Amino acid sequence: MPTAPTPADKFTFGLWTVGWQAQDPFGDATRPALDPVETVHRLAELGAHGVTFHDDDLIPFGADDADRAKHIERFKAALDETGLKVPMATTNLFKHPVFKDGAFTANDRDVRRYALRKVMRNLDLAAELGADTYVFWGGREGSESDAAKDVRAALDRYREGIDTLAAYVTDRGYGLRFALEPKPNEPRGDILLPTIGHALAFIGSLEHADMVGLNPEVGHEQMAGLNFVHGIAQALWHGKLFHIDLNGQRGAKYDQDLVFGHGDLLNAFFLVDLLENGGYEGPRHFDYKPARTEDITGVWASAAANMRTYLLLKERAAAFRADPEVQAALAASQVAELATPTLAAGETYADLLADRGAFEDFDPDAVGARGAGFVHLTQLAVEHLTGAR
Amino acid sequence: MPTAPTPADKFTFGLWTVGWQAQDPFGDATRPALDPVETVHRLAELGAHGVTFHDDDLIPFGADDADRAKHIERFKAALDETGLKVPMATTNLFKHPVFKDGAFTANDRDVRRYALRKVMRNLDLAAELGADTYVFWGGREGSESDAAKDVRAALDRYREGIDTLAAYVTDRGYGLRFALEPKPNEPRGDILLPTIGHALAFIGSLEHADMVGLNPEVGHEQMAGLNFVHGIAQALWHGKLFHIDLNGQRGAKYDQDLVFGHGDLLNAFFLVDLLENGGYEGPRHFDYKPARTEDITGVWASAAANMRTYLLLKERAAAFRADPEVQAALAASQVAELATPTLAAGETYADLLADRGAFEDFDPDAVGARGAGFVHLTQLAVEHLTGAR
Amino acid sequence: MPTAPTPADKFTFGLWTVGWQAQDPFGDATRPALDPVETVHRLAELGAHGVTFHDDDLIPFGADDADRAKHIERFKAALDETGLKVPMATTNLFKHPVFKDGAFTANDRDVRRYALRKVMRNLDLAAELGADTYVFWGGREGSESDAAKDVRAALDRYREGIDTLAAYVTDRGYGLRFALEPKPNEPRGDILLPTIGHALAFIGSLEHADMVGLNPEVGHEQMAGLNFVHGIAQALWHGKLFHIDLNGQRGAKYDQDLVFGHGDLLNAFFLVDLLENGGYEGPRHFDYKPARTEDITGVWASAAANMRTYLLLKERAAAFRADPEVQAALAASQVAELATPTLAAGETYADLLADRGAFEDFDPDAVGARGAGFVHLTQLAVEHLTGAR
Amino acid sequence: MPTAPTPADKFTFGLWTVGWQAQDPFGDATRPALDPVETVHRLAELGAHGVTFHDDDLIPFGADDADRAKHIERFKAALDETGLKVPMATTNLFKHPVFKDGAFTANDRDVRRYALRKVMRNLDLAAELGADTYVFWGGREGSESDAAKDVRAALDRYREGIDTLAAYVTDRGYGLRFALEPKPNEPRGDILLPTIGHALAFIGSLEHADMVGLNPEVGHEQMAGLNFVHGIAQALWHGKLFHIDLNGQRGAKYDQDLVFGHGDLLNAFFLVDLLENGGYEGPRHFDYKPARTEDITGVWASAAANMRTYLLLKERAAAFRADPEVQAALAASQVAELATPTLAAGETYADLLADRGAFEDFDPDAVGARGAGFVHLTQLAVEHLTGAR
Repeated sequence: MPTAPTPADKFTFGLWTVGWQAQDPFGDATRPALDPVETVHRLAELGAHGVTFHDDDLIPFGADDADRAKHIERFKAALDETGLKVPMATTNLFKHPVFKDGAFTANDRDVRRYALRKVMRNLDLAAELGADTYVFWGGREGSESDAAKDVRAALDRYREGIDTLAAYVTDRGYGLRFALEPKPNEPRGDILLPTIGHALAFIGSLEHADMVGLNPEVGHEQMAGLNFVHGIAQALWHGKLFHIDLNGQRGAKYDQDLVFGHGDLLNAFFLVDLLENGGYEGPRHFDYKPARTEDITGVWASAAANMRTYLLLKERAAAFRADPEVQAALAASQVAELATPTLAAGETYADLLADRGAFEDFDPDAVGARGAGFVHLTQLAVEHLTGAR
Repeated sequence: MPTAPTPADKFTFGLWTVGWQAQDPFGDATRPALDPVETVHRLAELGAHGVTFHDDDLIPFGADDADRAKHIERFKAALDETGLKVPMATTNLFKHPVFKDGAFTANDRDVRRYALRKVMRNLDLAAELGADTYVFWGGREGSESDAAKDVRAALDRYREGIDTLAAYVTDRGYGLRFALEPKPNEPRGDILLPTIGHALAFIGSLEHADMVGLNPEVGHEQMAGLNFVHGIAQALWHGKLFHIDLNGQRGAKYDQDLVFGHGDLLNAFFLVDLLENGGYEGPRHFDYKPARTEDITGVWASAAANMRTYLLLKERAAAFRADPEVQAALAASQVAELATPTLAAGETYADLLADRGAFEDFDPDAVGARGAGFVHLTQLAVEHLTGAR
Repeated sequence: MPTAPTPADKFTFGLWTVGWQAQDPFGDATRPALDPVETVHRLAELGAHGVTFHDDDLIPFGADDADRAKHIERFKAALDETGLKVPMATTNLFKHPVFKDGAFTANDRDVRRYALRKVMRNLDLAAELGADTYVFWGGREGSESDAAKDVRAALDRYREGIDTLAAYVTDRGYGLRFALEPKPNEPRGDILLPTIGHALAFIGSLEHADMVGLNPEVGHEQMAGLNFVHGIAQALWHGKLFHIDLNGQRGAKYDQDLVFGHGDLLNAFFLVDLLENGGYEGPRHFDYKPARTEDITGVWASAAANMRTYLLLKERAAAFRADPEVQAALAASQVAELATPTLAAGETYADLLADRGAFEDFDPDAVGARGAGFVHLTQLAVEHLTGAR
Repeated sequence: MPTAPTPADKFTFGLWTVGWQAQDPFGDATRPALDPVETVHRLAELGAHGVTFHDDDLIPFGADDADRAKHIERFKAALDETGLKVPMATTNLFKHPVFKDGAFTANDRDVRRYALRKVMRNLDLAAELGADTYVFWGGREGSESDAAKDVRAALDRYREGIDTLAAYVTDRGYGLRFALEPKPNEPRGDILLPTIGHALAFIGSLEHADMVGLNPEVGHEQMAGLNFVHGIAQALWHGKLFHIDLNGQRGAKYDQDLVFGHGDLLNAFFLVDLLENGGYEGPRHFDYKPARTEDITGVWASAAANMRTYLLLKERAAAFRADPEVQAALAASQVAELATPTLAAGETYADLLADRGAFEDFDPDAVGARGAGFVHLTQLAVEHLTGAR
């Protein structure tokens, strides 16, 4: 059993996660609103490192300046009292009807301008609160019909929006990096930048590409049937894993936002293994929703469950890597050999062409008959995950 | 009813498509092998522009040099007789057991070296036959278990492979560009570069990025529930739509390779609309499989059906765009306005900040209440597609 | 172009469809509430045959008896004025938090009892308004975790609930039949009776099985990747297609409730063909949601679009069936031969065993080599659907 | 760590599982054929209880009577030597081209008659070998196009086929029950009886319904995104779980046939819990495919892995049920209360109508505010599954 979480574990939660009132497409809220100040205190007690927020989580949409200041003040006081950090913030560009056709890519230019302003305002606050990451989830950037959206123009506007905001942040000297959060669909029929891959490609086209990375979410990739561990590995490979949203999902359906590990547990095991050994040092951010069936006691139990499962999988992954039988199996499967370049140091394609052993004298039938040992290796992982070794 | 296809329509087919003998995971072949020479003649009669091939489609795996030369000679003669072109070629890096754990990313380095050699050999032939695109479908580059593959190392090797081959092609002066073909899974549990997005991002990391683009396939994106039109639009936006594989798929299941239009017909309509109006000038390549229930008569009927459906959708799309009622609906939905930059010419974020109309005096409720008219627009598309207007 | 809809077409709409205010999991309502009286008048003008409702659509949850009577009176008056019928009604057992763990299958027995009472009350009203079908969509009957729900006990309670209500309806002499509406998931992680098949099997276990059938919905089956036409055919085969919900869906994702035909158009074509030729005589009920992007003008345009597309597909299907070339293709594919029993009249398995032509002298290779002609047939359908024949 | 499997655990394997030569839609076989006699000996050594087979696994298609007898003799000898049982057998009605449009539901009547004969022949052998279950997987009963198959006629023929064979078995006095195996798609675009539910409903229509039940397969339901535990619970509820196919699958994609537990591990945990506590006493049959990457050593390792994981999950599930904290959580979640009928003993709907506490005096808001405690319960399951308790 893992020890209790501490801030050193870098666990963070969105205000909107534990604060979700559990309204869904077919049902009313089942829980009262949660005061952000209360959330800060409870998360601190549970051992979290930080809290994150959308502008409208903290300050009700349309609040006047005085109200706004008051909300911020109370929140800062709670942070001071608890020592909780705000490593990340983001903008709500999806809830109000004005964003029904998107924010940066709405067909209506006035909406696009308004969206930029809404973000800028919250960038100021994010910087003031010491955040180092600012997330962009373009949940409304998309369409239900291919007639309604010129996707190439939309990508132009998306780029314009991010580049404009990047310039703003840079000029102001805010220590913020941007992290795009892909999602394939819901609430739009098809969302732009639907996967880690599409977002990575888009980032490559930005003027300020260096300060823009990703905030991938477990369930969002799994909704498209994609392997989240593969996606995170590619994001790390491009140097773009700036932040991460941990939760659970059970296949290609609506966005479930389950507790981390309550979905595809085997993939979660390998994800923790990768995060702990792959050079990622940012927050372990839980972007989940406490089930609609739960009351406030269940909410805090679910928050604790996320952290507990992460720590448990971390222990299991460490034991897996340390097991000599696993090391032998990895060697038998030549897993590490893939790090060896295909061409030798200094070898050119001309040398390769001249190497008869590579082709003319190579025996594909013999090599093709060799067993890779992958099932044995996987079984060792299952046995470690289940604590049987 | 559209007119019969002609080479000017640039329709092309893989030898392996009409030549598929209809062996599937649960069943034996239902059709005899098709002589590539016969295929060339029949495709020419049907009005195709060209034919494409994997090395092993044309020359049986393991054939000796004499045999190889004979196969090539016969094929060239057929091309000469018919005027059919070979705009694209590719390598079979998936059928032989030697590639069971991948080609460029196999854990076994000898396999990786052999794969590069197999490609180089066929690049020579592709250039000789006048191809301008060389496709890479990495169907075996992937894994069934996250324990078995170091994805970051695999991406290193993938990059090394493509860069090495790009250097080879460049040095030889072959007029070939590379086109990567993404697929999320099957035959591997998870395939590397699973979507258009992941492949685009990968290309951005290549030494020879300029000569590498995409060959997206309808069904491959739809297997992940992704909107193919959106994907193609993003590929075009990045300037990377080098080639395209047209076929049909019915949702998130095994790779069906149906006739073009026999899957998601509405998406196919918008796809043709985009290809015809989006600046893509390459071949319309059908990468489909004639159903296993068909005999050779059905094979050729299915080949014709692909072209016929494309031309039909092209007519429908043209009528859609030309209809004044559609133009009015597009205007009402502000579809074209998205091409207008969000910031005015010369406007900076500082100007935007100073524009009270953009935020302080903006009325989100009023704007949010406006209807977008997207459903009417979509209905017009459905009525054009069904020939009702 | 089809003629305008008339009541003879039997098109019906739920109050909750055009009345949906477009609140979704990530966004607030974008449209004001719609007065049911207004809806009745507008639907009548558009040519609809009838309107359907959940209790809470018509009478706000918790209204007192006086208020309730007033709402009903106004509604009846509108029906009288317009001639619109109420062929179906149903209960809202999903919106209020009390149903968060289900209604008939909630773990809490008090909730189950309350649910039965809520239904009985609305059954009285449904009978009073002349409905002949009463729908049960058990959207909250399910779970997110296999630990939380004893599925077999839940099915016992589900059966008890339906049987109790069937007895009530029978004893009161209401002319109502029940129609269960399956759905695989959303809003619960997994819903009981997830598909047409599961619901059909469950019905077979009921005491009052004869008066219980199905109300399948296009999108609900397609969310599970199932072929809706196949499902409807099986429902008809069991004599259990009591009602139908028409809409559109684009694959395995959240429940989209698009306009009919704005999803899988080819499947919609064959669905209309089956409904028109398969002996179904009930309402063509649209259970869709006008997109959140639309205002009230768009709402009514979307309602009209559903009917228009249905009539258009009906025309296309009729032309398909009437085309001699299609008839020839159907004959070549032996489609009608499947209606011939496998054993001849009076033939027993003993006779079959004695028929050497069936086995000993049968040539599987020769028969296996025959083409089925299915692709040609499908292409004819595509060409009819697109109005090209 | 669980103890080694013994025949008392009732683990069984198909000849075609370990014997799969690993040919897939894109690749040739990677392993040599396995002699059934060798398989029997190896499975016995590994602790299996039995072996199962398709006719063509044991006797090559088209073998003459003498050959056939020889194959059977050798197999029986191996069974005698090892004590391995044959609890189940089935027919290959999918591999030969003659079945490309189905067997019992092929449009071609001659094929349907041939199929019945092929089954009857193997029923004789199954009975001779002492099997008590005969499985029907109708993998080719389906279509790729809604134009090509009259689904209602197909269901008539399916019923005729099963009823004819049931009469045969009954008359001969074979102690065999039939078990239908549903699958949604692959190798056909859509397969008839696609889920547990559809097959259960179909069974209800049979003349010999009593002797026909189900053989559900983990991956087949999960390919449709359905919860396998829910499906098995419904099958048990109908008294129709006659046999089961255990394996692993990772979502809505091609049929993976992974080792049991190498897919959705959490669902596998609850499945074992249900099988062990739900009254199922039949074989635990593994219908999986050793990955194509493996050699024969990997094949046997994978066979052992299936059994080992099952036993491990059985241990974990027993500990979960025995844990007082789990029992308290189940009680708090009222899981067992669902077994209490909603109406009291002897209570009628009239009594319920008279119970003001059920409706008039019921407080839905208060009840709706109670927490269900489901997340805590799920977390306890995750911690037991991972051996952390």
